Amino acid sequence: MSRCPSLRARLLLCLATAATSAGVHAQPAQAPADTATTAMPATDLPYSGFASDAAKAKFAELLAEVRAGKAPNPTDIADQRQFYQRYNDARLQEVQRRYPAKVSELTLAGVSVHSVEPAGGIAAAQRQRVLINLHGGAFMWGAGSGALVEAIPIATVAGMRVVTVDYRLAPEHTYPAAVDDVEAVYRELLKHYRAENIGIYGCSAGGVLTAQATARLLQRKLPAPGAIGMFCGTGLLFRGDSGTLGQLAVGQAPMGSDGGASLPYLSTAKADDVVAYPMQSPELLARFPPSLLLAGGRDFALSALTTAQRRLLAAGVDARLIVFDGLWHAFFVFPDLPESQEAYARIGEFFDQQLGRAQR
Amino acid sequence: MSRCPSLRARLLLCLATAATSAGVHAQPAQAPADTATTAMPATDLPYSGFASDAAKAKFAELLAEVRAGKAPNPTDIADQRQFYQRYNDARLQEVQRRYPAKVSELTLAGVSVHSVEPAGGIAAAQRQRVLINLHGGAFMWGAGSGALVEAIPIATVAGMRVVTVDYRLAPEHTYPAAVDDVEAVYRELLKHYRAENIGIYGCSAGGVLTAQATARLLQRKLPAPGAIGMFCGTGLLFRGDSGTLGQLAVGQAPMGSDGGASLPYLSTAKADDVVAYPMQSPELLARFPPSLLLAGGRDFALSALTTAQRRLLAAGVDARLIVFDGLWHAFFVFPDLPESQEAYARIGEFFDQQLGRAQR
Repeated sequence: MSRCPSLRARLLLCLATAATSAGVHAQPAQAPADTATTAMPATDLPYSGFASDAAKAKFAELLAEVRAGKAPNPTDIADQRQFYQRYNDARLQEVQRRYPAKVSELTLAGVSVHSVEPAGGIAAAQRQRVLINLHGGAFMWGAGSGALVEAIPIATVAGMRVVTVDYRLAPEHTYPAAVDDVEAVYRELLKHYRAENIGIYGCSAGGVLTAQATARLLQRKLPAPGAIGMFCGTGLLFRGDSGTLGQLAVGQAPMGSDGGASLPYLSTAKADDVVAYPMQSPELLARFPPSLLLAGGRDFALSALTTAQRRLLAAGVDARLIVFDGLWHAFFVFPDLPESQEAYARIGEFFDQQLGRAQR
Repeated sequence: MSRCPSLRARLLLCLATAATSAGVHAQPAQAPADTATTAMPATDLPYSGFASDAAKAKFAELLAEVRAGKAPNPTDIADQRQFYQRYNDARLQEVQRRYPAKVSELTLAGVSVHSVEPAGGIAAAQRQRVLINLHGGAFMWGAGSGALVEAIPIATVAGMRVVTVDYRLAPEHTYPAAVDDVEAVYRELLKHYRAENIGIYGCSAGGVLTAQATARLLQRKLPAPGAIGMFCGTGLLFRGDSGTLGQLAVGQAPMGSDGGASLPYLSTAKADDVVAYPMQSPELLARFPPSLLLAGGRDFALSALTTAQRRLLAAGVDARLIVFDGLWHAFFVFPDLPESQEAYARIGEFFDQQLGRAQR
């Protein structure tokens, strides 16, 4: 986080620092001091032959933007917010062209939310179910259009109501403010839906918050949601190989070793807090509901996700992992990619299979 | 395959060629001609912080062996066979220290097999079930001790009988000889076990063969096995990002673009043969049994496995993926690593949950 806003919701980032960052050399390295460190030579990475032509074209476009330095000032939050607002607004137009939906704004337990339904309405079989979406954006932006980009395709493909939560953002509000807001909305929804008929999912920061909120609900002895989806983020810091390999693969500098711990939102979270970092508690994980973890193969979050899934499996949880080779962090904000549509289908199927069906 | 025996069963490979291989530069690259190709600078990759200390120590050891050029002559099959025989014999000693088992040799339908049981015998609840193990080794070696290294931990942890098949090897015998041998053994086992109580699994070349054999059984309209495990190999060529990223991460040269198609075994396999390359046929995949796919995060096979799982999911198959961050191709031949023991546990659970329980 020191160099780049690594927990950012989107690909476009500070390429300018890549060539001079720690761990990156102009020459092939000598054998490194740590005998388990691999000295990788400079290499051209061709785009994955397993990804679609559309993904390849979009990747080339994004890579060109990164090369051109099209990114907000990483030390200016107002500039970042403005940049990602424009970015998310553009994505939302693409989403709305493909997935017609009805969107309404309301307040639940004092928290602003959007309620999203398929334009044709909700099928009778899905009326007793609801999904809570927690948007990405480094806990600092992503409300509004960013949230709708994540909610509309899922509402439409799954045929379910999705409630997006405009949780309080950092740096003005830090952990556990966002968790408090999700808990408040969940308690309100419990008045209308059975817990096992409620799903929670989120992307990037929203994936982290999904893990945290689930831990909080369990800690408070509330009935657990029926299933959760942690996409491109989970209850672990962004450590492991993908912080280096995934970043290099998208033309960026390796992530710092803090793995996101220095994000403003987490400044008030202690390392041993099992709500802030739930993947460290096997006892808590054993009570997690069925979980879907999903990421791109070039996502800096990949190692956190694969590790979180292993810990959930070890705790006896039905945890599913899907990895899209060649795709990048939060790729499914681009609704026209076949891989995005595949992700929406898998997410919709997962919640349809895992959530309860009983009427309240 | 032109440069390195990429479908090899083990890590130790031709480092010597790494620095001069196509796609690897002594200097950071100019923007590559293909606008979707990423020019990655030389980089020190620290070992994954998500992996165990034991895995880190073993990786450092293997990296040192790679640096020292401890690898067989890639153009001399006799040398490779001798090298891997010694290698597998050493692994087998480690396996036998930790997992006591009874091993017997027999012939089924004219094919040599080993039958492996836990030393304490098979629990009553597992007597109606059997697993078929198809060993790795580039389709050119790995019988005997190599097969037992893969079979003994699973037999012991799952408490099931495992039959390892000494299928005919290349280059003396090519596709579909190995598939024929697996089919013959399967038909013989069908006389004693219900199809849904039989599992098939394999690592590396054995993972490829598991996919091929399953496709063959379905094509011949035999009853499908109850579940299969494709580890570090599957019914897809080794293309995608991991052919570059995974190889670089273990100190080796990027895999050639043929992704294994030039292996001697596959010299008689046509690209459109759905038994040789089953992942290209959605209709065939739809009939696949529940599948477990498992790989290390630094495995050159990772992209093939993640892509195969997506194709199986898209075909409606219950396909599970597990990825071990920082671990390498076929890491679980080292039985003392916590990650290996975790893999054995997940494999055992998977077959226990998926295979049928009815008596014949």
